[in-house]
Amino acid sequence: MKEMRVAMATPSMEDYVEKIYELIKSKGYARVSDIANELNLQPSSVTKMVQKLAEAGYIHYERYRGLVLTPAGEMLGEEMKDRHAMLSEFLRTIGVPEETVQVDVEGIEHHVSPSTVRCLQDLTSFLRENEDVRLALAAHRRQRREQEAAEEKAQERADA
Amino acid sequence: MKEMRVAMATPSMEDYVEKIYELIKSKGYARVSDIANELNLQPSSVTKMVQKLAEAGYIHYERYRGLVLTPAGEMLGEEMKDRHAMLSEFLRTIGVPEETVQVDVEGIEHHVSPSTVRCLQDLTSFLRENEDVRLALAAHRRQRREQEAAEEKAQERADA
Ligand SMILES: [Mn+2]
Ligand SMILES: [Mn+2]
Repeated sequence: MKEMRVAMATPSMEDYVEKIYELIKSKGYARVSDIANELNLQPSSVTKMVQKLAEAGYIHYERYRGLVLTPAGEMLGEEMKDRHAMLSEFLRTIGVPEETVQVDVEGIEHHVSPSTVRCLQDLTSFLRENEDVRLALAAHRRQRREQEAAEEKAQERADA
Repeated sequence: MKEMRVAMATPSMEDYVEKIYELIKSKGYARVSDIANELNLQPSSVTKMVQKLAEAGYIHYERYRGLVLTPAGEMLGEEMKDRHAMLSEFLRTIGVPEETVQVDVEGIEHHVSPSTVRCLQDLTSFLRENEDVRLALAAHRRQRREQEAAEEKAQERADA
């Protein structure tokens, strides 16, 4: 049996709900033009997706207040925020440079099934709680990089 | 500075080269119709992408032999195969169920930067070489799942 994503949101629905959630938390509201700006899309595409999200039960439109997350949308937004934070912590912990962490988290966060998210959560909390393992991993990484550098040098000498 | 993907292949170019590489290795040739079948796409989309891949230097077309990978395409295909295998091993090692491993690897493999791939390679080889760490991680995971189950039960009792 294949796993279902939370409430069957597609990766791009997740992306939208994540952005709307962030906008509402930071600015108090989420306008179609703000969402379009943040996601680098045409307002017309955003309007189409906003309709889909409303049909799926994640948002609704209120006169005066504008876009509002339903309880289901609020839950999904919270989940996306936690997932984003967990994946960032995980990549940072294993040594990925900060500028790459942000790019890659955006790339992978909507392509991980619930059971993968849970296993990565377990791994991340395991690494957080065990400094000795983190240090052993860092030493292992250093050793592999030094070996790689030595092999490259040997190759260069052989080529010369 | 943002990282560049290998030879600037886009995620979907990587996907195509991966499939073409696999088809050539297993059947000896890669026809547009086979690629379309494997990627669940219309032959016309495949034809368009095949032209892009040829312009980018990954494949060329030879009368009689059909689609052939250039040395750059061969290198990229090999890299995709290794990356797929490494990500599968990583997810399997941290406890992700097998049917989810394959789905999620397909989802994330074209969204990881070279430095993330290297850090995950280091982590995977670290886990492979240290059984004690694998066992401690498995115990940590079991403990967290048991705690979750206990909390759920307590919640159910409180709701009743
Ligand atoms: Mn995000
Ligand atoms: Mn693959």
